Amino acid sequence: MATAATRATNSASHHPLTDSEENARLYRYESDIKTAFDAIVPTLKQVSAMQHQADFETRAQQLAREQLGYELPAEMLADAWIDQLDMRRLFAWCLFETYRRFCDEFFSDDPMGKSDVDFQRLLQECGFHTLDISPCADGRLAHVIRYVLRLPYRAVRRKSYAGALFDIEDSLEKWVETELLRFREGRPNTADEPTRYLKTVVYHYSSVDPQHEGCAAHGSDTRRAASAGLERLQAFQQAVENTYCCGASIDRLLIGLDTDTDVIRIHIPDADGAIKLDKYIDTREIYDATQPMAASIAEEWIGDYVIGANPDMADGMARFITYLVINNLSQIEYVRHHHGDHYPDIGHAERFIGAGIGFEEVQLRNLTYFAYLNTVEEAAPDLDVGIKIFSQLNIAHGLPVPVVVRYDYHGNVPGARKRAEAHCRRVADALHTRYADLTDQGLLHTLQAVRDVNAASRIEILDSSVKAQAAQEAH
Amino acid sequence: MATAATRATNSASHHPLTDSEENARLYRYESDIKTAFDAIVPTLKQVSAMQHQADFETRAQQLAREQLGYELPAEMLADAWIDQLDMRRLFAWCLFETYRRFCDEFFSDDPMGKSDVDFQRLLQECGFHTLDISPCADGRLAHVIRYVLRLPYRAVRRKSYAGALFDIEDSLEKWVETELLRFREGRPNTADEPTRYLKTVVYHYSSVDPQHEGCAAHGSDTRRAASAGLERLQAFQQAVENTYCCGASIDRLLIGLDTDTDVIRIHIPDADGAIKLDKYIDTREIYDATQPMAASIAEEWIGDYVIGANPDMADGMARFITYLVINNLSQIEYVRHHHGDHYPDIGHAERFIGAGIGFEEVQLRNLTYFAYLNTVEEAAPDLDVGIKIFSQLNIAHGLPVPVVVRYDYHGNVPGARKRAEAHCRRVADALHTRYADLTDQGLLHTLQAVRDVNAASRIEILDSSVKAQAAQEAH
Repeated sequence: MATAATRATNSASHHPLTDSEENARLYRYESDIKTAFDAIVPTLKQVSAMQHQADFETRAQQLAREQLGYELPAEMLADAWIDQLDMRRLFAWCLFETYRRFCDEFFSDDPMGKSDVDFQRLLQECGFHTLDISPCADGRLAHVIRYVLRLPYRAVRRKSYAGALFDIEDSLEKWVETELLRFREGRPNTADEPTRYLKTVVYHYSSVDPQHEGCAAHGSDTRRAASAGLERLQAFQQAVENTYCCGASIDRLLIGLDTDTDVIRIHIPDADGAIKLDKYIDTREIYDATQPMAASIAEEWIGDYVIGANPDMADGMARFITYLVINNLSQIEYVRHHHGDHYPDIGHAERFIGAGIGFEEVQLRNLTYFAYLNTVEEAAPDLDVGIKIFSQLNIAHGLPVPVVVRYDYHGNVPGARKRAEAHCRRVADALHTRYADLTDQGLLHTLQAVRDVNAASRIEILDSSVKAQAAQEAH
Repeated sequence: MATAATRATNSASHHPLTDSEENARLYRYESDIKTAFDAIVPTLKQVSAMQHQADFETRAQQLAREQLGYELPAEMLADAWIDQLDMRRLFAWCLFETYRRFCDEFFSDDPMGKSDVDFQRLLQECGFHTLDISPCADGRLAHVIRYVLRLPYRAVRRKSYAGALFDIEDSLEKWVETELLRFREGRPNTADEPTRYLKTVVYHYSSVDPQHEGCAAHGSDTRRAASAGLERLQAFQQAVENTYCCGASIDRLLIGLDTDTDVIRIHIPDADGAIKLDKYIDTREIYDATQPMAASIAEEWIGDYVIGANPDMADGMARFITYLVINNLSQIEYVRHHHGDHYPDIGHAERFIGAGIGFEEVQLRNLTYFAYLNTVEEAAPDLDVGIKIFSQLNIAHGLPVPVVVRYDYHGNVPGARKRAEAHCRRVADALHTRYADLTDQGLLHTLQAVRDVNAASRIEILDSSVKAQAAQEAH
């Protein structure tokens, strides 16, 4: 663990290329959100302790208002005198309420906003029209876009998969859609511009405890994780080339993330875009080497360093990698400044499982275990991993696993909303069926939510197992 | 029922525009295939009757060779003396073997072949570059492309859905893919040609028993079936228009099929493509009105009749509808000639359920109940309907429900075959789990098969619950 002394040292010595102002803003946001989620357990402990006291309801609501910022559902408190408070339900209710408030703030105040116009221009100057990133679904990578790489999240396609093993057919579909928009509507640029679709995989490893805290999907084996990501990238490229003629292809990028420090490894492609597993640059070394330099010298040094790693690399790719490296330096400083040598939570510490399609608002580390899914049937292995993680995080302490079932839809497609609603219901039902044991013990709770991405609106809560239970009891 | 007399009359009086030669060829094919499937039960009855006789195995195999054209699995016969033959397993084994032989013939001999070059040219001359047809999944519509409308099946996209309620997102995806091919590769024509994507829904009704033998998904209510199809077409058009700019749209066509006679109703679009439920032409009337005419006069009469139904209609659409009408006359004659006033099997008489994606080979009426599906979770309502139909067809007689689980894949996409295999396994498992009662009684059997559509190859059998059982018993 970092001592107060090292923390102070790191805090004192800024890197010339980091954005301290953004670091402060991002830290404030992360702290606010996590504090809100983490206030639930201590508050409910106090509420539990006072449940048989006189004037319980009034005192509990006062406490909730003070510590959580909202009131608890009156009917849950009202019945406490009969038997005792259903703390599992109350916990799930609070968690879902905190999630809703977090979402509302995200979509109305845009706390993660960053100009995507500049980025889109840079991307195209580097020879790409789309950046499509598939990180691992592990919650410790959920901040990879906005924090680790400092990218505008709206300008990047993110789709997470266990082990970063993205769905090739899904990416192919996105490639087709992207190309058509270029041909038909000249968005983001016209099809005759010689730019490419850049598909990126982010795998991960742990520098502190490499044998245990790496990627579970690859047995915490860094080389296996990297190699599987590379294989998938090659397969996607081949799929595009074999399916479409006339030089159709993509560019590929492979990045490794140390989830303890947010240092990244960027594997350097050669002139033909070929990637080697052991040919990468490490931003920790770059940070340390350039920290004493003046900003302009450091920037030049990094540019040279990237090109030096492979002089054959395409100019645009070198420029883009340099951009990512410099962005990441701010995040390295962020971690060193606030946590010292590494994060205190190097293991899993997710607050809820996010199942479905959407979750644009989740740009924070260790907040959400992602399970992008259409059906429980297809995603069963990923969900089992999620439930296993939460068995240790929550169930071991008697707390339920909170799952947000979420489907985003295009409001301009007739019937899409109705289908999203049905989708939520079907998946929530399938979850409660698959994990019936947990459901029966009140150890699995689901929230159903949809969002119209065309309207750029807030999420809408449709239903929740917490409420359903309340409704059942009322009958 | 048709009497021998009416059958003779119909047979004598040909319509001048029908293709008797093709009718004869199509009938031979249909009879051959159905005879093969329908020989299973009588043969197995005889096998069952002789199972405790001396020399049983030799005699049973001789009978099977003579009546079915293949031998039965020796190990199933060998154990008969211990207890008795497992007729359910044997039936499923024979059905799957017949299916495999039927598929092999289809993909190697191309018995349903028809030139798609001429059709593609005609389609484009009429103002369309793609014909995408969604019939109801009911087995009585499975022959709609090649028989009822006499189209080359390879040149038409068919995707069946219960109640013809096609998936709008899936069609949108196909539309995008089609447009991109036009832009990038000029296939089937270049994007600057003013042709459109023609989406067609085929709903169905029963003229003989309209209250009971219409579309189950719409309560056997013809108007409801037509109206739901029209609504879906409008929603798809709106989805394309709202999602893509610059005049993106589709053309729509609504067709009703009388599953007793294969007569069709074509709803006549006006100049703007608007369709009215009660504005349609009926090919039975056209057949009867034009039968006495000379061929050239009949053809002209039909062209005028179609235009007369709505003089505002676009020329290309009128020409295409005329083409469909004339094609359908051959099928009307086919039914009259071979079956008289209507098919003998006006109700369900499917031989197996087809679950998955593929089934290009199924171009025959009442052979297969389709359940196009990715997961059992999503398709559960459709599958329940299929199981209900087969409860009456098979289970009521002690016979199992045979389900072919099939996934076609693109062999030029790396890993696609492995994913298709996993898909088959997952869906077969989910089926046996959902209908565990039937599985336990040996009343549900599955065959797993995949096919590489890029290689235009035969299907490959991966596994079968019939074999799995045998393997288990052997251990």
